[in-house]
Amino acid sequence: MAINRIISKDVAEVEPGLWSNCLRVGDVVYIAGLTSRDKNFDVVLGNDEYEQAKVIFAKIKALVEAAGGTMSDVVKLTIFVTDIANNKKVWAARREFFEGDFPCATLVEVSALARKDLLVEIEAVAHLGQGGRPATA
Amino acid sequence: MAINRIISKDVAEVEPGLWSNCLRVGDVVYIAGLTSRDKNFDVVLGNDEYEQAKVIFAKIKALVEAAGGTMSDVVKLTIFVTDIANNKKVWAARREFFEGDFPCATLVEVSALARKDLLVEIEAVAHLGQGGRPATA
Amino acid sequence: MAINRIISKDVAEVEPGLWSNCLRVGDVVYIAGLTSRDKNFDVVLGNDEYEQAKVIFAKIKALVEAAGGTMSDVVKLTIFVTDIANNKKVWAARREFFEGDFPCATLVEVSALARKDLLVEIEAVAHLGQGGRPATA
Repeated sequence: MAINRIISKDVAEVEPGLWSNCLRVGDVVYIAGLTSRDKNFDVVLGNDEYEQAKVIFAKIKALVEAAGGTMSDVVKLTIFVTDIANNKKVWAARREFFEGDFPCATLVEVSALARKDLLVEIEAVAHLGQGGRPATA
Repeated sequence: MAINRIISKDVAEVEPGLWSNCLRVGDVVYIAGLTSRDKNFDVVLGNDEYEQAKVIFAKIKALVEAAGGTMSDVVKLTIFVTDIANNKKVWAARREFFEGDFPCATLVEVSALARKDLLVEIEAVAHLGQGGRPATA
Repeated sequence: MAINRIISKDVAEVEPGLWSNCLRVGDVVYIAGLTSRDKNFDVVLGNDEYEQAKVIFAKIKALVEAAGGTMSDVVKLTIFVTDIANNKKVWAARREFFEGDFPCATLVEVSALARKDLLVEIEAVAHLGQGGRPATA
């Protein structure tokens, strides 16, 4: 095994010395807390939690696939929002990216994310090569 | 190995398309952020952090045991509370469910959980089949 | 494999019945959410996020090394701050402890940590024996 950094052309990387978006260790994939910043890491995409979460889940999908897996390999999501009253908007976005038995998830409201226009931050853990999460019975 | 969804008759599952309470991947067990909602996922059980945490730890115990393990296999707890001044109430509940060397834990105060009457949310990771955490010397 | 508690003489342990700072399960190392409390777990070291984060990263380093690894084995950091406007102070401290491709990280602002003078809490996951994170190209 080795620790490999996973990069996707569809997900902006920050400059060296900050963090990696995705590291794969054997079959385990760690994905950093991602937001809906654009490729220049400047503009925030999406005006509400639904739109921002869609951008974030698309990034998670791109990274998991770049690591050699699929969204069915994601087992854990940790979701931080700035207004939990809108949690159903995040749920709606999630339904567009997952099927069958969904990942385990935690969703809490924090007092602030890195910028005031960021409403959602999501991190993920995936286990590749295990056949994915089961389909819902 | 495979990814298996773990269900306990003692822990209410949410409708499909939201999240799984528990997924087992090989020997690793992920448990979602759980709260003290009742079996109908409507009423919140427990009027303070001690009572709510007891309900949550009982759910974690039920799920870890349904996965084939015990509470001694839990290695990490992440605890979100809405009033950190009451963290000792969570600690008191935790002492009723763990012994020996306790799990690693993080406990922070968030600005809100999914409902105003929810005071605590706890997620967990366990590693089964390793003999459990050691007894305190 | 077994679950082993990892202790460092440089990191204060809390009394039994609360939490372990560090548990090693096979090659995986879990480190609890650590703060900059001193060895008596009373005084808080560091007057700003930079100084507190340096104390915390030194503790993480001590624990990872006591587990048989190095800081290059750390794959995930979860960072909770009480004022996200000062996140760059945490980044500055982090740069003194990591090199090459940095760990995946999540950094969010929470409404409170265990004491008002605590500004930062950081937890970590490491995978030992995999050769460490790669050097940045």
